[in-house]
Amino acid sequence: MLNSYSTADKVLLAVDCIIFGFDEEGLKILLIKRDFEPEKGKWSLMGGFLKKEEVLDTAAIRVLNTYTGLQDIYMEQLYTYSEIDRDPVERTISVAYYALINIENHNAELIQNYHAKWFSVSEVPKLIFDHDNMLSHAIRRLRYRTSMRPVGFELLPEKFKMSQLLKLYESILDKEIDKRNFISKINSLDILIKLDEKDMTSSRKGSYLYTFDKEKYDAKLLNHFALNF
Amino acid sequence: MLNSYSTADKVLLAVDCIIFGFDEEGLKILLIKRDFEPEKGKWSLMGGFLKKEEVLDTAAIRVLNTYTGLQDIYMEQLYTYSEIDRDPVERTISVAYYALINIENHNAELIQNYHAKWFSVSEVPKLIFDHDNMLSHAIRRLRYRTSMRPVGFELLPEKFKMSQLLKLYESILDKEIDKRNFISKINSLDILIKLDEKDMTSSRKGSYLYTFDKEKYDAKLLNHFALNF
Repeated sequence: MLNSYSTADKVLLAVDCIIFGFDEEGLKILLIKRDFEPEKGKWSLMGGFLKKEEVLDTAAIRVLNTYTGLQDIYMEQLYTYSEIDRDPVERTISVAYYALINIENHNAELIQNYHAKWFSVSEVPKLIFDHDNMLSHAIRRLRYRTSMRPVGFELLPEKFKMSQLLKLYESILDKEIDKRNFISKINSLDILIKLDEKDMTSSRKGSYLYTFDKEKYDAKLLNHFALNF
Repeated sequence: MLNSYSTADKVLLAVDCIIFGFDEEGLKILLIKRDFEPEKGKWSLMGGFLKKEEVLDTAAIRVLNTYTGLQDIYMEQLYTYSEIDRDPVERTISVAYYALINIENHNAELIQNYHAKWFSVSEVPKLIFDHDNMLSHAIRRLRYRTSMRPVGFELLPEKFKMSQLLKLYESILDKEIDKRNFISKINSLDILIKLDEKDMTSSRKGSYLYTFDKEKYDAKLLNHFALNF
């Protein structure tokens, strides 16, 4: 009989949280130093076991809060990892969650008090278990999303310079983007409003500020795909 | 302490397989009649428990094979479901997998011998547990994929009529599509080759046959997205 509840093997089920952050310096990832064996002292994603009375979404939120103090972060389920020896202590299946947040909207001090630390995505230390693999998977997902639709406007201030938007894309895609090409592609989407205001902080001539046209943006999300009938 | 292996709750972990099929009649879903309690005699996805020595991908392939005889089906992980009471017998977390196959390439008799049955997606019976939910989730994923990039050419014969391609899209999106509009959108993608050959079976004038231009198709996959820098 294929489905016998009583003889089936039970396993440990964990959640791991991948938190991307964006600020003026670029795209970052939040890590903690593991404070117990095995791999004590190594950098790690925020992880913990699912409890009896919890669903996975709740477990992810609890674990993230316990390790970083972060609250009310909406995380999306990424993938479930089941390699036999991924955890050397005991077989543990892990469900990874991810989110992308604006670092400046959250209390940096709080996060530090919890011994969590932001790392630039290009300078991530070696992580425990298969967390490197989870992280690359999450970065791929983030890039895929970004190539599919304009993403991350909620990560910028309400009024922003074109150079800030460019930096956001460069950070997520981890490559230099030709600025003229970028501006022409973004303009062709017709979702930005150029304001009469300038930011005068970085050059004498100043840089025009933009805001995005929420109505057009939402309409694009529904309609801009190649094969939408 | 947040992470104590010894006191953490273990759970049953299952896989459920969502197999979409396409044939001349349209988009279908493969179901089995559950042969044990609870919900014995009800229609169900193909499901079973993960074994100690298995990774999830392998469990999904084994379960599908046990219930349908189907072999070598590449399934993609969809989502992990963890509602507390989703299985009334005992808490079971389930990882759903899905695939879209060409029904005619597989042995219909074999599948029937295993008591598995194809249902038109528009006429699916009430399913056990949260399988209805899994199925809608998988359909949404399939539609999303389809709106993102030309999908499913591998479900058609090598040479096909435009009306067959239209039918594939109508089946997946579950709506009537204006034929002229469809032809013009598909042509604008520039991934089809119109052959000099006609299919004479359905009309006196015949219908031109098409095949798809694999090189251009692959190039499009890499390049056709709105914000690809």
